[in-house]
Amino acid sequence: MTRIGIIGNDGAMGRALAAIVAASGHDLAGGIDRGGDPAGLADASDALVDFSTPQALEANLHAAIGAGIPIVIGTTGLEAPHHEAIDNAARAVPVLQTGNTSLGVTLLAHLVREAAARLGPDWDIEIVEMHHRRKVDAPSGTALLLGGAAADGRGIDLAGHSERGRDGQTGARREGAIGFASLRGGTVAGEHSVILAGDEERLTLSHSAENRSIFARGAVRAAEWLIGRTPGRYAMDDVLDLA
Amino acid sequence: MTRIGIIGNDGAMGRALAAIVAASGHDLAGGIDRGGDPAGLADASDALVDFSTPQALEANLHAAIGAGIPIVIGTTGLEAPHHEAIDNAARAVPVLQTGNTSLGVTLLAHLVREAAARLGPDWDIEIVEMHHRRKVDAPSGTALLLGGAAADGRGIDLAGHSERGRDGQTGARREGAIGFASLRGGTVAGEHSVILAGDEERLTLSHSAENRSIFARGAVRAAEWLIGRTPGRYAMDDVLDLA
Amino acid sequence: MTRIGIIGNDGAMGRALAAIVAASGHDLAGGIDRGGDPAGLADASDALVDFSTPQALEANLHAAIGAGIPIVIGTTGLEAPHHEAIDNAARAVPVLQTGNTSLGVTLLAHLVREAAARLGPDWDIEIVEMHHRRKVDAPSGTALLLGGAAADGRGIDLAGHSERGRDGQTGARREGAIGFASLRGGTVAGEHSVILAGDEERLTLSHSAENRSIFARGAVRAAEWLIGRTPGRYAMDDVLDLA
Amino acid sequence: MTRIGIIGNDGAMGRALAAIVAASGHDLAGGIDRGGDPAGLADASDALVDFSTPQALEANLHAAIGAGIPIVIGTTGLEAPHHEAIDNAARAVPVLQTGNTSLGVTLLAHLVREAAARLGPDWDIEIVEMHHRRKVDAPSGTALLLGGAAADGRGIDLAGHSERGRDGQTGARREGAIGFASLRGGTVAGEHSVILAGDEERLTLSHSAENRSIFARGAVRAAEWLIGRTPGRYAMDDVLDLA
Repeated sequence: MTRIGIIGNDGAMGRALAAIVAASGHDLAGGIDRGGDPAGLADASDALVDFSTPQALEANLHAAIGAGIPIVIGTTGLEAPHHEAIDNAARAVPVLQTGNTSLGVTLLAHLVREAAARLGPDWDIEIVEMHHRRKVDAPSGTALLLGGAAADGRGIDLAGHSERGRDGQTGARREGAIGFASLRGGTVAGEHSVILAGDEERLTLSHSAENRSIFARGAVRAAEWLIGRTPGRYAMDDVLDLA
Repeated sequence: MTRIGIIGNDGAMGRALAAIVAASGHDLAGGIDRGGDPAGLADASDALVDFSTPQALEANLHAAIGAGIPIVIGTTGLEAPHHEAIDNAARAVPVLQTGNTSLGVTLLAHLVREAAARLGPDWDIEIVEMHHRRKVDAPSGTALLLGGAAADGRGIDLAGHSERGRDGQTGARREGAIGFASLRGGTVAGEHSVILAGDEERLTLSHSAENRSIFARGAVRAAEWLIGRTPGRYAMDDVLDLA
Repeated sequence: MTRIGIIGNDGAMGRALAAIVAASGHDLAGGIDRGGDPAGLADASDALVDFSTPQALEANLHAAIGAGIPIVIGTTGLEAPHHEAIDNAARAVPVLQTGNTSLGVTLLAHLVREAAARLGPDWDIEIVEMHHRRKVDAPSGTALLLGGAAADGRGIDLAGHSERGRDGQTGARREGAIGFASLRGGTVAGEHSVILAGDEERLTLSHSAENRSIFARGAVRAAEWLIGRTPGRYAMDDVLDLA
Repeated sequence: MTRIGIIGNDGAMGRALAAIVAASGHDLAGGIDRGGDPAGLADASDALVDFSTPQALEANLHAAIGAGIPIVIGTTGLEAPHHEAIDNAARAVPVLQTGNTSLGVTLLAHLVREAAARLGPDWDIEIVEMHHRRKVDAPSGTALLLGGAAADGRGIDLAGHSERGRDGQTGARREGAIGFASLRGGTVAGEHSVILAGDEERLTLSHSAENRSIFARGAVRAAEWLIGRTPGRYAMDDVLDLA
């Protein structure tokens, strides 16, 4: 039985992780929060899953290295020095860092890159997302990630080709643009569609999340996958063999 | 056999009208453009369909009155004096003026009004539309018409409750807001969805046009319906018995 | 503070009801299961919500009458004698019996009836639903309820006009038919779309449930609405003022 | 200017091809029907596009070989001897034979194969399509093509894993099944969705055709692509560099 240790277990994600670990037939090695001891948790675990804070990152990486076990990092708000610390740790143990642990979104981004690469700029790309009424920013991080995949497939730069927040006399669509639109309402956990609109036909690639536990599920799947790998820095694409 | 006369028959709408008149088993009385004689056309027709210009409106109304036949007016860009002229003409003959002759959109607006009236402001309303890449304004006129129907159902004023062009740090959705988002791409003739998003459930009411001939079809249907009515000013709602 | 009593509180629906009662700011008067005493519960409640068994129905109705309080009945599998008992009870207290307590589905059925009534049989009606992989029957009860509303709007009989399970050499669509299709997969709580497809345009009216708590929410809303009404038999349409 | 010769130019597809050839800035070398002379047409063309009959195939291939030019074959109803003739011709000139010339559908099939290969059998696959009311068979050929791509990605056999025409007491979904559902109505040119439904998330990959001219467009694009290739048998996947 695989023992999973959770860092950052007091929030909604921590609770979701504990539920998924149990449902997956794994053993919950335990969980710690702010002020907890990651080294002790690492010693009792086969893999760590870290959804805590940038401040705690370095201690968590040290704990993984000390115990010689892999670590999945889903913490947001990382900056350059954090990524450097991750690169260093990845020389000693397998480390997977990602901004989105959903398997479905990971695969969708891959398919979008592929479609954008094949179809050429006479197919217009639009990205529309819907989230619950309390979300305070637009477009969603996942919409931007999908836009980045589309730009990547086309070999262009996203920032220079985005059309966001259309309203009023916009003029005709710019050739090669990637458009974004954001819907807000109800309790929607997250829906994203990437539309590739050509002459008289359309391809639409969509992802729909029923709730936020999919992120916990993907993180646990990533942890399983990391166990036994050679040290190195990995991404969700590797878990789905998409690289 | 009903004889339909078309005013403004050189554009795309004129050609679509002629095709629909033929396909409906009616007789195309003829068509005129800028500089043509509406009185002669009216004498040879059982009903007129006018998709021309505001400048031509008065002569067209006079022609209908002179011949004692109904007239459907789909001309856009009308202002207060034009509406006054229509009201005057409606004392003599049946007149139907509308900004959207599609039967599907007319019914959709009715259903949106009904849904908004029943569900209350804890159901968030979002309107998203997609049109071809050459459209120069956003949101579409039909999206605004649907937003007006939603506002009407709730007994609020649309202008004071619209959230358009979301982008960046928007903050949470305002209670009671009606949101709009616009997608552009390919050759899409027109798609509109009105989403009512409540707690853990969603109602979506959508219309999709395969091409622009639906507007011609609705205008001819309106002309058929007008023949034999008492003089008065009518709307598309009357054709579907929604008033 | 309104006190709600739950009959049948050991299943998933009972737990969902208790959660919604708490979240709505009401007081959970308590709950009983098989063998519990409905009369005692009724004395401590302002309204009863019954999701138990047909066998328990009569005792539950008597309890409501004894305490002089309304009762919402969501129990399934009722037959003619049960409906007779409900009619009798409805002379003494307000009773609302329904096979679907979702507000969204209730409104959708109303809109479908309206649309089918207005559009005429040259608009083809199709109903498609998706549910989780464990559902054992097709189409869903809600799909049939929506089909019934469409047939009702058209003034036809559903059984004689259904096209179900298309496969192989079906021939062209029968004029006036109402088609049904069922998708199964994943953990989908329930999605239903009613498509009205005319010449070159389509109207789609959809409902999507994120989880099954919407049925609990609608039942509690119905209980609130019943309190203070005159005795009689009510339906969900009355709660939304659709009758 | 590239000269395209059309074989089978009297039907709807022939007219669509002529329109697309003109719109693409190519030269319409001419067209022939039953009884026409393909050799003469081939001598005046840089590439042939054949949407005629299996009976005419051999003469058409000979004409292409005689003129030393490529040929695109979209004729349906081919059997083993026809495929043998194509293989023989492909030793002399470039030949592309396909049952579906739409670029969007070709790419969709590729994405479906990829997604099915990555996600594993705990993601349920469903395919739903909608076509106009006159279509006489279900599921559509394109739906079966997409189902084949999904089965291929999973390394299973489609025939042994299909669930079609669900109706009545179906029991729970079989593990690993690929489900099909068919909607019919209005004038819909063709819509296909492949749904991959996992635990609490869903991926949907869709294609929508506004009309049938996309097949002509793809055939002309294939002809352009074939010119100058080495002799051999090609498929639409090659045009999009998907092989």
